[in-house]
Amino acid sequence: MSPIGERVALADLPLREDLRGRTPYGAPQLDVPVRLNTNENPYPPTPALVADVAREVAAAAAGLHRYPDRDATALRRDLAAYLSTAAGVPLTERNLWAANGSNEVLQQILQAFGGPGRTALGFEPSYSMHPIIASGTRTEWSPAPRRADFSLDTAAAAAIVAERRPDVVFLTSPNNPTGQSVPTEDLRAVVEAAPGMVVVDEAYAEFSSRESAVTLLADHPEKLIVSRTMSKAFAFAGGRLGYLAAAPAVVDALLLVRLPYHLSALTQAAARASLRHSAETLGSVALLAAERDRVAETLAGMGFDVVPSDANFVLFGRFEDAHATWRSYLEHGVLIRDVGIAGHLRVTVGTPEENDAFLAASKEVGR
Amino acid sequence: MSPIGERVALADLPLREDLRGRTPYGAPQLDVPVRLNTNENPYPPTPALVADVAREVAAAAAGLHRYPDRDATALRRDLAAYLSTAAGVPLTERNLWAANGSNEVLQQILQAFGGPGRTALGFEPSYSMHPIIASGTRTEWSPAPRRADFSLDTAAAAAIVAERRPDVVFLTSPNNPTGQSVPTEDLRAVVEAAPGMVVVDEAYAEFSSRESAVTLLADHPEKLIVSRTMSKAFAFAGGRLGYLAAAPAVVDALLLVRLPYHLSALTQAAARASLRHSAETLGSVALLAAERDRVAETLAGMGFDVVPSDANFVLFGRFEDAHATWRSYLEHGVLIRDVGIAGHLRVTVGTPEENDAFLAASKEVGR
Repeated sequence: MSPIGERVALADLPLREDLRGRTPYGAPQLDVPVRLNTNENPYPPTPALVADVAREVAAAAAGLHRYPDRDATALRRDLAAYLSTAAGVPLTERNLWAANGSNEVLQQILQAFGGPGRTALGFEPSYSMHPIIASGTRTEWSPAPRRADFSLDTAAAAAIVAERRPDVVFLTSPNNPTGQSVPTEDLRAVVEAAPGMVVVDEAYAEFSSRESAVTLLADHPEKLIVSRTMSKAFAFAGGRLGYLAAAPAVVDALLLVRLPYHLSALTQAAARASLRHSAETLGSVALLAAERDRVAETLAGMGFDVVPSDANFVLFGRFEDAHATWRSYLEHGVLIRDVGIAGHLRVTVGTPEENDAFLAASKEVGR
Repeated sequence: MSPIGERVALADLPLREDLRGRTPYGAPQLDVPVRLNTNENPYPPTPALVADVAREVAAAAAGLHRYPDRDATALRRDLAAYLSTAAGVPLTERNLWAANGSNEVLQQILQAFGGPGRTALGFEPSYSMHPIIASGTRTEWSPAPRRADFSLDTAAAAAIVAERRPDVVFLTSPNNPTGQSVPTEDLRAVVEAAPGMVVVDEAYAEFSSRESAVTLLADHPEKLIVSRTMSKAFAFAGGRLGYLAAAPAVVDALLLVRLPYHLSALTQAAARASLRHSAETLGSVALLAAERDRVAETLAGMGFDVVPSDANFVLFGRFEDAHATWRSYLEHGVLIRDVGIAGHLRVTVGTPEENDAFLAASKEVGR
C-alpha cells in the first residue's frame, strides 16, 4: 500500500531554511555479524539484571495510567549515589538531572543557556551531535581546533575561550571519536577561562582511569556541568538514560525548559534496576579496557597509525580512501564507523571474538 | 547533606533572558485521595496488559546494551494499524511518527517548521504547553481568541489565519481545557486558509464521537499534521508515547530534528504491547464518556455553569475566586485543576466512586 500524501516531497514543505538539504544523523543500522560502529558495550545485561528490570517494570506498569514522577527524584538519588562513589565527590539528588539519553540532557542545556544570539564552542573533531544539537536549538556553533594528533592543547583552548567568549563550551574526556582524555587539572584552566557555562561530556568516563571533572564542581559550581550516560559502560544504550552533575541552580534552570514528564515511569524503573547491578555491569569495563589496549597494539603492529584511546573505541588510519576501506570491512562482515575524519576510521571495542574478527579483517582490507 | 554548589542561585547563572523569572510547568503532584487534575485515565492497566508489557520489556531488556531501532519502525506500523481503524483511513508506518509524549512530537514539529523569525498561532484558552513549546523553540506565539463560551468560531479562525499568516497553526479537537470538539468539515476551512503547517491536536479524540481530522489528510497532505497520544484513552500516561499522522515528507522533516535514538527499546516494546490490548483498554472510554455526561449534568443541576465536553474532563464555574475554590476542593480530599481561566476549574472524569466524591465535595465548596 502506498502511503497517503506520498506525492508531497520534503522540498514542498515550509521547512526551516537551515535544515534544507540536510540528511538525518545516524550510523547505518545494518545487520552484520560483527557490529563495532556505535560504541555499544558488547556484553548483554546479565540474566539477574534482566529479571530485575522486568520485575521493576512490571511493578511500574501497574500504574501506567498515571503520569510518572515529573522530577524523577528517586532515580536522581540513585544516580547521585553512583556518581558520588565513582567520582569520589559527595553529591545529592539536587546535583543530578536525567533525561532520555545525554543528547536530551545536552539539548536542555542549550535551550537554557544557548539559543539564538548565543554561541557554543567545541574542539573538533569531537562528538558530532554537539553542533547538531546547537543547530537544533539555534545556537551558533563555534568550532575550535585540536592538535594534529587530535589531543587537546588546553593552554591554547583556554586562550581561544577567553578570546571568543562563547556562552557554552563543550569539553570531552575521553573525546569521541578520537579517544584521548584530559587531566582534570588541565580542564580546570579552560573552565577558569570560560565566561559562560562549561559542559564536560564524560560519556566514556568509566573506561578511563582519569579523575572525573566532577571533582572541579565545588570550585566552579556557577558554570560547570558534567554530563554522563548509561549507554556505554552501563550497557544501557537501549534504555536511553543520560544524566548530569551540577549545582542545584543549574538543575532549576533545566526545569524551565524540560518537557513535563519527559522521563517515563518505565525508564525510571529500568534505570534504577540497572544501577543496582552496577558492580556486575561495570565488571566488563576492565575487560574492555584490556581489549582496547590489545586491539590498539595489534593494529600498531600491523603498521596502522593508532590514536591513543582511553575509551571503548580506537581511531586508526591512515587510509587513502577511508570510506572505501569502511566498505571493505563491511564486505568482511565487520561494521565499523566512518566518522568523517580524513584517512581514519573508528572501531568500537567488542568481545575478544569480535575484536579477533576485526583484526583478521584488518589484515585484508584495502589501505 | 547539603548539595555542592548550593550557594549558587538561579539568578547567578547566564540563563536565557526570556526564561528569567519563570517557574516550571506542571500541576502540583500531591498525594490526595481523589486525584482528578491531569486528565489521566482512572482505570489501571489490566493484569493481562501488565503481564504482556513485562514479558515484552524483559525480552527487550536482554538487548539493552544495543541502541534501539532509531526509526521505531515496528511501533509505527502498529500505530498505523490502530489509527487506520480508529479514523477509517488507510495509513502506513510512513505516515506515522512517535516520540516521548505528544509534547516531544510538538517540539519536533516546531523545531522543523517554527523557530526564530517564525510564528505559531493557537486559539486560547487551549493546551498551555503549545505556547510553552513555542517559547522553548523560540517560535513567536500568536494567540487568537475563542468565542466567549470557549467554542471555536471556525469562520473567524480561518479569517485570522488568512490575515496573520502563521507558519504553524494549532487546532485542538476536543480542546483542552474547555472540552469542545470541532466538526471536521469546519476544521477544513481553517486548514484551507493556512499558508503553513496545521497541527490538529487530537489528544482526547477517543473520548469524542467526532470523525478524526485524519480524514482530511488525503486532501491536505502538504500541510496537515494530526497529533495523538497514548496517555489518555490508552491509559499509558506513565509510558510516554505521543504520535502523529502526516504525509511521509513531514516524517522526513522530523527525522532532521529528532535526537537520534530518542525512543527507548523499552518504550517501543511497552507501547507495542499496550496497543495489542487496545480493545480492552478502550473499553473504559465509553464508561468514562457516560460518567462525563453524568458529572456534567449533576453539576448543571447544582447550578454550576458547565462547558459542554467531548473529552474526559469538564470545565465548570463560575467562581468568585477559582483558586480559593480549588483549595476548598483540596481540603475535601479532591485534587482538581486550576487552569488559569477566570471563574473556572477543570475536573478530570474518574471512576464512578471518584466522581461521586467530587460531586459530594461540589455541594460543599465555597463558590
